[in-house]
Amino acid sequence: MREVTIKEFKKPVFKKKPVLIEGLPGFGQVGRVAAEHLIKELKAVKFAELLSPAFPPEVFVDSNGLIHPIKNEFYYDSKNSLIILIGDTQAADIRGQHALVGAILDLCKKYGVREIITIGGYATGVLKEKPQVFGAATSEKLIKKYSEHGIKFKSKKERGGIVGVSGLLLGMGKLRGFEGVCLMGETPGHPLFVDAKSAEAVVLKLGRSLGIKIKTEQLRKRVEEIEKFRTTVQQMMQKAMQQPKEEGDDELRYIG
Amino acid sequence: MREVTIKEFKKPVFKKKPVLIEGLPGFGQVGRVAAEHLIKELKAVKFAELLSPAFPPEVFVDSNGLIHPIKNEFYYDSKNSLIILIGDTQAADIRGQHALVGAILDLCKKYGVREIITIGGYATGVLKEKPQVFGAATSEKLIKKYSEHGIKFKSKKERGGIVGVSGLLLGMGKLRGFEGVCLMGETPGHPLFVDAKSAEAVVLKLGRSLGIKIKTEQLRKRVEEIEKFRTTVQQMMQKAMQQPKEEGDDELRYIG
Amino acid sequence: MREVTIKEFKKPVFKKKPVLIEGLPGFGQVGRVAAEHLIKELKAVKFAELLSPAFPPEVFVDSNGLIHPIKNEFYYDSKNSLIILIGDTQAADIRGQHALVGAILDLCKKYGVREIITIGGYATGVLKEKPQVFGAATSEKLIKKYSEHGIKFKSKKERGGIVGVSGLLLGMGKLRGFEGVCLMGETPGHPLFVDAKSAEAVVLKLGRSLGIKIKTEQLRKRVEEIEKFRTTVQQMMQKAMQQPKEEGDDELRYIG
Amino acid sequence: MREVTIKEFKKPVFKKKPVLIEGLPGFGQVGRVAAEHLIKELKAVKFAELLSPAFPPEVFVDSNGLIHPIKNEFYYDSKNSLIILIGDTQAADIRGQHALVGAILDLCKKYGVREIITIGGYATGVLKEKPQVFGAATSEKLIKKYSEHGIKFKSKKERGGIVGVSGLLLGMGKLRGFEGVCLMGETPGHPLFVDAKSAEAVVLKLGRSLGIKIKTEQLRKRVEEIEKFRTTVQQMMQKAMQQPKEEGDDELRYIG
Repeated sequence: MREVTIKEFKKPVFKKKPVLIEGLPGFGQVGRVAAEHLIKELKAVKFAELLSPAFPPEVFVDSNGLIHPIKNEFYYDSKNSLIILIGDTQAADIRGQHALVGAILDLCKKYGVREIITIGGYATGVLKEKPQVFGAATSEKLIKKYSEHGIKFKSKKERGGIVGVSGLLLGMGKLRGFEGVCLMGETPGHPLFVDAKSAEAVVLKLGRSLGIKIKTEQLRKRVEEIEKFRTTVQQMMQKAMQQPKEEGDDELRYIG
Repeated sequence: MREVTIKEFKKPVFKKKPVLIEGLPGFGQVGRVAAEHLIKELKAVKFAELLSPAFPPEVFVDSNGLIHPIKNEFYYDSKNSLIILIGDTQAADIRGQHALVGAILDLCKKYGVREIITIGGYATGVLKEKPQVFGAATSEKLIKKYSEHGIKFKSKKERGGIVGVSGLLLGMGKLRGFEGVCLMGETPGHPLFVDAKSAEAVVLKLGRSLGIKIKTEQLRKRVEEIEKFRTTVQQMMQKAMQQPKEEGDDELRYIG
Repeated sequence: MREVTIKEFKKPVFKKKPVLIEGLPGFGQVGRVAAEHLIKELKAVKFAELLSPAFPPEVFVDSNGLIHPIKNEFYYDSKNSLIILIGDTQAADIRGQHALVGAILDLCKKYGVREIITIGGYATGVLKEKPQVFGAATSEKLIKKYSEHGIKFKSKKERGGIVGVSGLLLGMGKLRGFEGVCLMGETPGHPLFVDAKSAEAVVLKLGRSLGIKIKTEQLRKRVEEIEKFRTTVQQMMQKAMQQPKEEGDDELRYIG
Repeated sequence: MREVTIKEFKKPVFKKKPVLIEGLPGFGQVGRVAAEHLIKELKAVKFAELLSPAFPPEVFVDSNGLIHPIKNEFYYDSKNSLIILIGDTQAADIRGQHALVGAILDLCKKYGVREIITIGGYATGVLKEKPQVFGAATSEKLIKKYSEHGIKFKSKKERGGIVGVSGLLLGMGKLRGFEGVCLMGETPGHPLFVDAKSAEAVVLKLGRSLGIKIKTEQLRKRVEEIEKFRTTVQQMMQKAMQQPKEEGDDELRYIG
């Protein structure tokens, strides 16, 4: 059983050495939502799939009853020389994460990736009207370059951490000679809250940094839908907390 | 230490390319009970055993004091061209599940399996008089075929999941070119409740879908026994909740 | 990193094909205490050590400050043709347990072991004046043989389990052609309670079954010491529960 | 994926067979703080880095936004013939710990290490004005040698344990022919409390044992800073416990 399997079914072509953008699931789904948006807007094309025995042993079923294996996917955008990594999950254990990142870096090496950009959420516990974008990079040079686009690198805290693929890809990447930056959109960090607004903030900074024009109308719509949903849930829960719990439907209660 | 060992001690013969039916333990033991019934009714013959170092490190002891190693077992039914997979357990960790499914798919390939049917429970939290059978499949074609027999594939929910071998076998199978369907009998999902009624519902749909006549008298008896037992437990617990806890037999309490 | 390493530093000699007796830590330390006693009484000689990367990553320190690596040990008794397995621990994960048992069975094969006897505690939650000895075996023949010495094999419960090396050694052993029996001394199953009385009961049955005279005076002394200690603790705890908790020594409380 | 990777980028030179001093994170960070101090005071030079797929899958970010991969590091001091091992973490699972220790011992063998000194905290639950230094060693000879410098080896307790690399390095080391000692500074054992005072106590004993003059002024300063911080936190928490919890900032509360 190989640790990670990457199946490439298309040969990507780039104008210059590509940039890898990673948007796997994480805090507020910021990375995933941002990467999904980039793929749609830039009409990026899928060229490879990645499987791991450390992915959760399950499948997704869509509303039609169709089964979808759990995987990560690589897309490319020839015009802007981008590789975009998106997926259903990160690996579910420590060694799986290291093996996943190792395999992604092998692919980066194969295509001569010149810079790695990982996208994540920066969990602050509070919901901001205008989420900021924080950064962390593998070199002073990159910190300087990305700081010019309004990304915040300095902090008062001595030392923080970036957990998961967004961090490890840059850490292991640095040791293998890659340079890169992690862009983190401020987000409450609630496990079920999909923070499209935070993703929008990251996409805007990312576009500016890479010198690519990326439209965000579709992302804006999603922000508004989520905002509407959030307000509804908020009202429902306020109501629910004013009612006593109902007894009933006790058929099975006696078994347990 | 090999990940999975399959020992074949008989050579199964089939009239046409066989269908694999998987019934390992899961929600409500629906799959296991259904598979046990199929083996008995169709007089299927055991031809292989599967062992894994990711199975729980223990053994079963029957009421005579005889020890039984923990394993999975493959049976075949020549007449109806079926392979039936049954067992004591699924693997106890993520990589074990992937390795288990990989080994099952190797066996499917060896015998030219044309379709994989996995059986599971669909945990709804409530006990229904007439449990429904839900489905998920690897292709639109199979969804159409099985829908004709009253199996429900569509749902309003965006995306659900099938956890464990019943899901992974179809997900990894799809990636290796197999087609298949998961039949899920509606069940409360209580960990100790063996839902023979739900298994019966699945067996009836399964027989109709495969064009095989399967008697369910024995399963009906089991449903009635479990129903009787459930009622008894329910009454005992109602009584118990009306009595205060007794003190006594305190010999060892003071050690802890 | 090999899964398990066995270092043999002596060549055991046996009059006839040996019996393996396993007494690793478990419920009530019944197996370990019984095996320790057998080694002392029969003057068994250590001939091999077993190490595993799945043993807990720590060491023991004795009251002199001397460090002892964690390991399992094999002793032999030429006269009675016995191999006795004793140790500080079982493996700490599922695969480690399978690998440990696999390595023990390799050693059994090497020395032509004719029967495996595993010793464990049978946790009942209550402390008995006269603990019984329960059994489970790999064949009807062995059940019959050991039943003659007053070991109880039959039970009303449909199916129980034996967790850990005591079970797995017989389960995996059976699949590899070994026969064996698990002798379980009735014990409360409290994690800190060392049940020398239960171990004594097993040793007596074991000696009778093997036709070996084993003195148990030393074990009797240990039973009495533990009994004395248990009574003292019981009295201390009764006192403690009559006193309110004291406040004080709060120096560090504020840090946490 | 290799279990452990050691990259050596300098060739250390020693006057005589070196001593390895290990100071990885643990109780009260005693080992890490002591090792950091030794490296600074003795102007030790980094010559190797160690990586493991069992290290936590994350990176550290400093206050400038610069990313630091998680690793262990080896320093050497030619004059005093020392190798000092320091790091961000121990391995996060059992097998990782064994592999980590195995790799460290390989390096010890390569450089002919004559003795291994591991440093840890001895968690007592209380904060002492003058923390003692406890010891455990692989031989009676070493116990005698280190006892002369006021390190306590004997205890009334039958058997304790040393968990993690500080213990395992000596246990696995002993089995591979290395001799060594673990020096444990008494510490409360609180997870967030960095016990520089305990580290200072160990460093003083260590210097005396090795016949090396080590200044501890810098460590003293750190002790005083931590003491000041501790007092502040203590006062803050006393205040906090006198105030009722405030409601407010409830924006997201309703989502969860």
